[in-house]
Amino acid sequence: MRATLIYGAGDVRVEDVPDPTLQEPTDALVRVLHACVCGSDLWPYRSMAASDQGSRMGHEFLGVVEDVGSEVSGLNAGDLVVAPFMWADNTCDFCTEGLQTSCRHGGLWGRDSDGGQGEAVRVPQAQGTLVKLPVGEDSALLPSLLTLSDVFPTGHHCAVKAGVNPRTTVTVIGDGAVGLSAVLAARRLGAERIILMGRHKDRTDLGREFGATDVVAERGEEGVEKVHELTGGDGTHTVLECVGLRPAIETAFAVVRDGGVVSRVGAPQYPEVPMDFDVFMRNVTLTGGVAPARAYIEELLPDVLDGTLQPGRVFDRTVSLEEVPEGYRAMADREALKVLVRP
Amino acid sequence: MRATLIYGAGDVRVEDVPDPTLQEPTDALVRVLHACVCGSDLWPYRSMAASDQGSRMGHEFLGVVEDVGSEVSGLNAGDLVVAPFMWADNTCDFCTEGLQTSCRHGGLWGRDSDGGQGEAVRVPQAQGTLVKLPVGEDSALLPSLLTLSDVFPTGHHCAVKAGVNPRTTVTVIGDGAVGLSAVLAARRLGAERIILMGRHKDRTDLGREFGATDVVAERGEEGVEKVHELTGGDGTHTVLECVGLRPAIETAFAVVRDGGVVSRVGAPQYPEVPMDFDVFMRNVTLTGGVAPARAYIEELLPDVLDGTLQPGRVFDRTVSLEEVPEGYRAMADREALKVLVRP
Repeated sequence: MRATLIYGAGDVRVEDVPDPTLQEPTDALVRVLHACVCGSDLWPYRSMAASDQGSRMGHEFLGVVEDVGSEVSGLNAGDLVVAPFMWADNTCDFCTEGLQTSCRHGGLWGRDSDGGQGEAVRVPQAQGTLVKLPVGEDSALLPSLLTLSDVFPTGHHCAVKAGVNPRTTVTVIGDGAVGLSAVLAARRLGAERIILMGRHKDRTDLGREFGATDVVAERGEEGVEKVHELTGGDGTHTVLECVGLRPAIETAFAVVRDGGVVSRVGAPQYPEVPMDFDVFMRNVTLTGGVAPARAYIEELLPDVLDGTLQPGRVFDRTVSLEEVPEGYRAMADREALKVLVRP
Repeated sequence: MRATLIYGAGDVRVEDVPDPTLQEPTDALVRVLHACVCGSDLWPYRSMAASDQGSRMGHEFLGVVEDVGSEVSGLNAGDLVVAPFMWADNTCDFCTEGLQTSCRHGGLWGRDSDGGQGEAVRVPQAQGTLVKLPVGEDSALLPSLLTLSDVFPTGHHCAVKAGVNPRTTVTVIGDGAVGLSAVLAARRLGAERIILMGRHKDRTDLGREFGATDVVAERGEEGVEKVHELTGGDGTHTVLECVGLRPAIETAFAVVRDGGVVSRVGAPQYPEVPMDFDVFMRNVTLTGGVAPARAYIEELLPDVLDGTLQPGRVFDRTVSLEEVPEGYRAMADREALKVLVRP
């Protein structure tokens, strides 16, 4: 079959790879209908050292079950399913606590198994990992349902860990697909004041439709000042950091209110966090982390199925599998917000 | 009157200073009965640059009201009171939320007014700050009641912010007075497994009496391994970091369970926190900060008054006001755990 591999910065290729097969009795095989390119795929795309050995890419996909191992129950060939971006048995103590990203039998697509940007995927721990979707292959909801694999639950996780509720003011840092998903999630959790920090007007316009009440296009100190102006000098109770770069986390601490929470879901491209004596005196909490998407899918699914929420609006370009390299380029060059892949 | 000033590292003096007077209608004057030396007093004692101008010291005290300003109600001359280590109006929005350390009219003893290590103190925002104690000047409970000004609520804050409850396992890092208070607070909140990391046997022995179930005397990687051994390799749900030095916070992240919380109340002597990609993937939260002692005094008071808790056992040396410099030396040299001052 055909699948996507990365060989180094800027070097994404679609190649022939062996067809996946059932290897464990807990596996399933899934034919991919929709996949996509993640903001986190851009980190290796920008900086990975060249290698002779390609790495399989993609961790967001939705597809049709083709076969299941002998120990998989509740799933059958023909079922339409979505996969969270890490697999999990969904029965261990961490999974039971809603932390499927720390599952004792879990793993990450691409690194530990097939990637999602291909024609098919071997899914380990299929029974715990896959969630059936009550729609057909031709449903117009598929793009929004695909966001349940990563980007929407990631925004939701950010808001949940921050403790967003109707009484908390919110700043969202970043107008990428995760930031916009965080806006949508914060609004869904009842936040009435959501300040979106982002400088791409087409994206922040979508952010307003998702629920942002204010947009701050300025960055750095100017941006901080603007948020302070909007909040009587105090900052907001919660800050959702959806970028992962050092200036973003610095801004987060500068715009959070005393006693407030900074929640981060942008994979941190920095080893240290500036939580100094001042942050200590202000009792600011830093939370967040990689989102256990599996924990949230059932909760978020109804709002997507009935059309109340349309997180799939973050997709503004669709490519075929062979065009995936062009999809990476378009996202890296900020021509596209998020790229949908239809193998 | 006589009061304590610091002029530089190792240079603490007791000198004549002007008697305090009422300056604002919201002030009170308090004659100090008991004060003490805080672990945080040792930071300037160890590193402050020499200065011609002394700084007033002490932020923990308990005493008798001598006079009150015209706008102070509910307090009268003769009342025995304890003061939290920062003053607050106790009516602003931050105070109402229980964050009196960020009070809009608050301040810090020594820096913004008299210090507590003296014969008397002018107390700003007296009505919001002072808490009446229903005991006499000769009560044997005074040392334990004095801990309500800082060290016990600080340990309590650490445990509360970490979310300690009967289902959480706990590691306490540090066997100083704050660490031992954190053990006492964690036990009070129902924790059944409390691992105390500390290497001074007399202190960790008191820690066991306060509720520690395990003691780890090893430090660094060895200490981390030991905690992992004790917890099946997982670490504990919560880690209470009661030191404030870089190795302590590093240990904290190494012994916390995935999805867990590190709570810090040791004033951080480091500008950056090592919360890297690994910490992110493990969904570890960092919380804590300076303790709003005022928020907790009423809650903790009954257990102290009825003798259920004896946080005053952290005091293992008593000095007169003139002997305060010797008290600093004894604590800095770890001869004393915590020094009580009786002016």
